Amino acid sequence: MDAPASLRRLIAALLVVRASGHLLDSQRRYPQWELPNAELRQLLDQGVGGVILLGGSAPEVALRCEQLQSWARLPLLRCADVEEGVGQRFEGASWLPPPLAIGRLFGKAPQQACALAERHGRCTGREARALGLNWVLGPVCDVNNNPANPVINVRAWGEDPSTAAALAAAFVRGVRAEGVLSCAKHFPGHGDTSDDSHLALPLLPHSRERLNAVELPPFAACIAAGVDAVMTGHLVLPALDAERPATLSKAVLTDLLRHDLGFNGLVVTDALVMEAISGHYGPAEAAVLALEAGADLVLMPADAQAAIHAIAAAVEAGRLSLGQLEASAERRQRALASLPGPSLPGPSLPATSLTTANLIAELETSPAGALLGDEILPSEILNSETLISEILAASLDRQGGVLAPGPGINLVRLENLLQAPQAVPRAPALEAPAALGYRACLLEPRSPSPWQSEANAPLALERLGEGPVLLQLFVRGNPFRGHSAATEPWPAVVGQLQACGRLAGVVVYGSPYLWESLQAVLEPTIPAAYSPGQMPLAQALALASLVQGQAPEVGVGARDAGIHADFTD
Amino acid sequence: MDAPASLRRLIAALLVVRASGHLLDSQRRYPQWELPNAELRQLLDQGVGGVILLGGSAPEVALRCEQLQSWARLPLLRCADVEEGVGQRFEGASWLPPPLAIGRLFGKAPQQACALAERHGRCTGREARALGLNWVLGPVCDVNNNPANPVINVRAWGEDPSTAAALAAAFVRGVRAEGVLSCAKHFPGHGDTSDDSHLALPLLPHSRERLNAVELPPFAACIAAGVDAVMTGHLVLPALDAERPATLSKAVLTDLLRHDLGFNGLVVTDALVMEAISGHYGPAEAAVLALEAGADLVLMPADAQAAIHAIAAAVEAGRLSLGQLEASAERRQRALASLPGPSLPGPSLPATSLTTANLIAELETSPAGALLGDEILPSEILNSETLISEILAASLDRQGGVLAPGPGINLVRLENLLQAPQAVPRAPALEAPAALGYRACLLEPRSPSPWQSEANAPLALERLGEGPVLLQLFVRGNPFRGHSAATEPWPAVVGQLQACGRLAGVVVYGSPYLWESLQAVLEPTIPAAYSPGQMPLAQALALASLVQGQAPEVGVGARDAGIHADFTD
Repeated sequence: MDAPASLRRLIAALLVVRASGHLLDSQRRYPQWELPNAELRQLLDQGVGGVILLGGSAPEVALRCEQLQSWARLPLLRCADVEEGVGQRFEGASWLPPPLAIGRLFGKAPQQACALAERHGRCTGREARALGLNWVLGPVCDVNNNPANPVINVRAWGEDPSTAAALAAAFVRGVRAEGVLSCAKHFPGHGDTSDDSHLALPLLPHSRERLNAVELPPFAACIAAGVDAVMTGHLVLPALDAERPATLSKAVLTDLLRHDLGFNGLVVTDALVMEAISGHYGPAEAAVLALEAGADLVLMPADAQAAIHAIAAAVEAGRLSLGQLEASAERRQRALASLPGPSLPGPSLPATSLTTANLIAELETSPAGALLGDEILPSEILNSETLISEILAASLDRQGGVLAPGPGINLVRLENLLQAPQAVPRAPALEAPAALGYRACLLEPRSPSPWQSEANAPLALERLGEGPVLLQLFVRGNPFRGHSAATEPWPAVVGQLQACGRLAGVVVYGSPYLWESLQAVLEPTIPAAYSPGQMPLAQALALASLVQGQAPEVGVGARDAGIHADFTD
Repeated sequence: MDAPASLRRLIAALLVVRASGHLLDSQRRYPQWELPNAELRQLLDQGVGGVILLGGSAPEVALRCEQLQSWARLPLLRCADVEEGVGQRFEGASWLPPPLAIGRLFGKAPQQACALAERHGRCTGREARALGLNWVLGPVCDVNNNPANPVINVRAWGEDPSTAAALAAAFVRGVRAEGVLSCAKHFPGHGDTSDDSHLALPLLPHSRERLNAVELPPFAACIAAGVDAVMTGHLVLPALDAERPATLSKAVLTDLLRHDLGFNGLVVTDALVMEAISGHYGPAEAAVLALEAGADLVLMPADAQAAIHAIAAAVEAGRLSLGQLEASAERRQRALASLPGPSLPGPSLPATSLTTANLIAELETSPAGALLGDEILPSEILNSETLISEILAASLDRQGGVLAPGPGINLVRLENLLQAPQAVPRAPALEAPAALGYRACLLEPRSPSPWQSEANAPLALERLGEGPVLLQLFVRGNPFRGHSAATEPWPAVVGQLQACGRLAGVVVYGSPYLWESLQAVLEPTIPAAYSPGQMPLAQALALASLVQGQAPEVGVGARDAGIHADFTD
């Protein structure tokens, strides 16, 4: 027998399903995960209450939010994983440096770091709202105290609890000030694992005391700062629950998060389609267990219809109480009601009179920073180019001499050449060395091997060509384990190239741990730089510092940086 | 002294400037060529009469057309180089196989080929109009009788004059039937050159008799079919004009095209920023010379303001007559008036009431084929997936046995890994071999070298790994000269892999000339296939034919082909 329609609608409102940020089915990048429009429309018509968006440019996502909302019965939660600015996911908006760039600044300049973290949140919240999103799935509250962590890494706000707590809370304040919901993740802390929960179910063997000291403070700080939601982590904590991962554990979600930490906002699962959950629990059962444990919202259930059906059956069987579901719906409603209305796509554009012309007028006012509307802070402070430049300048590391002109080889190591937003046409990492006579050699894990089996000379230099080598490494995950770069002997390459006098320079973009491992072997005269960012502006600044011996003045758009920055001065 | 405003506006209407298809300046891919919005807006406000769009997805371009039109004083010419379907340039629309796929079918099935060419034009015209474009810059009328041609190649409709004439004219009929302007190019014929006019000024040493026999018939056929415009080629024909390239030659544009061929439509230059022109003439002078020679419209002047100023000065100096400019403006007006109105962005959406919701409703109706509006032909005939499948099936070449399962190496040669629309996530060229145990090795001109200096064994196999090699070559330009693939010894590689028993299979996507050179050395048992297309559906069909011994039934979207096609049957 089918559950009553009212019960099914109550349940549907607690699901958040994944949608491509594109308008057309034919544009979807991952059709195995992104529902086609017909199916999405049906789910939203049944009362599904949230969407998580991925892919598409900023203007497309603005249209997409309106489209999805127009199909829905309820005001939707419209969220995205925009931990590093809206431009991290949606082209044309601002791509901000990763949180750890600010986290590593905290030790020497805590006030500057906190101010930057808050502006990071404001920029992200403001651009999210301009596009019609109302929920930013950040900050990451995990403490990155394990350099071998393959999945958190530079996404974290700190490598110690107090840094992560101070900056994550500042980010929350920034997002909230823009009238957008925030989300602390991944509860109770994903920092000290060396497994990736997208692939396996990690285990955190710590005692409750240790959790209190290390993992929990950033969450507590965000709760105190008024964070709207907490996302669960797919990891097992035997000290709290020997059997079930946090996402499905009553001890973690209800006893620890609700009771001990006193959190009364929205508890949302991480994506249930991830292998850590889907590899161990049936698609419908996982959703039931998450609600039983105390979650309010179910993110990306493997099968939304099956989840609705199973949750309804669990209510009828007495496993879940109607009162609990109603309380979750009430929390959801309260979160949405706390937003300044109308929230789609921004205060200046009431949904009822939105026209293409309005939208265009809103979007066209020039670079991504200008998605800003009325200004509460001085525009200089809210301008994203200024923010990006400040973070990059404060986090740029530089040592050694000045980069000599070529001819030579510009060896660029990327994780995936086929999806490399760093390597847009005219990216400074390619253009600036080319202007100096360095010929590009592009390397990724699927390239013809540049390696030979000599421990002290791992690079087969004859496969690259003649001349000195400028090494540019775009590595974000941990370079020593659980990551393709882990198996690549970059410190030995530095030694090899130095030994034969062919190391022109080194730049690392992303991982501070790879940078530190190279610093340990770099001769002091070799020009070398590190930037936590990988975006074009990070490249322009790092390379300009290599050529000029110092970072250039910054006043250009990220996209134009490669053209305007003068590398030959 | 400044020219009168009325003269400046008359001149401005004859310019076609380049704009990114994106809404935001920050999204531009080529800011050195794509004007920023502030400058575009100023030019359109001054009366500039046309825009050529590049980049952006289909929904973005729909918004962009409306935006640009809203800035303009005149109904704009809104054009794009969509020779291979609108999806060639604008993601989400239909990416059709290149014209030569149909051209090579003409010999054995002329009626089928003509019908496919007309549907190619209809699909392109219909989708162009749905996005707000009103001018398709096609067909290519160049006869590809020189396999060394680095720039025309598979863009041509035929390798002989009568094939190119019949099919280009059919394409024109298709575009016109959809109420969109067409453009025959590159007059008087760019097929028999081995230089690329983007880089140098090619020379065509033929007599007028030879031109009459080979180069001109496709243009004559298109004129007879009612083509709306003819685009000039940047090449020198000493038999007609010893001094000036066709684009700037009165002998070519006025004497030959207007008088001898009797063409009274729009004559438009190819882009004046191309090196063949900009390397020899000043940016403003080139525009004046083109109009003097008889062109009506100037495409992508290097500096639009300078061009307006110089043309005005030429009128005042008596070099150009006002009457001539007025005649050009009149031709432009007539072309626009011939379109079924309102032409932006389609008959169902009058510009005055266009809203985001309307636009979305138009776009969302699902795959790219559904950008179709009211149907004149049965939907099956106009459905682009059907059209793409038919062309690919008719042009697929297949020989040898069945591809054995791996483990092995999937060696994929692309022109540019950083911009490879063929290699979208889950592209069949990667996914299908992976499912059979073939590990991808991605090669492009900037990869670490896979080559060693042995003529009969050019591939350094130890750099690729163990096992048999499936060779997939995405090569469109000529593989023997003037092209990066030209220096790569693929026939010798086939011989090398056959000699050591490690050639699992071969697929060529694009160039029939590379395919023919490999066929000459392929052992008859080796599974091998050729497709003129490079899109995901072409990959799915070619690989399925390799695995199954025949092409599979096709009924899936191009994007889904990699998932739905069952490669293990």
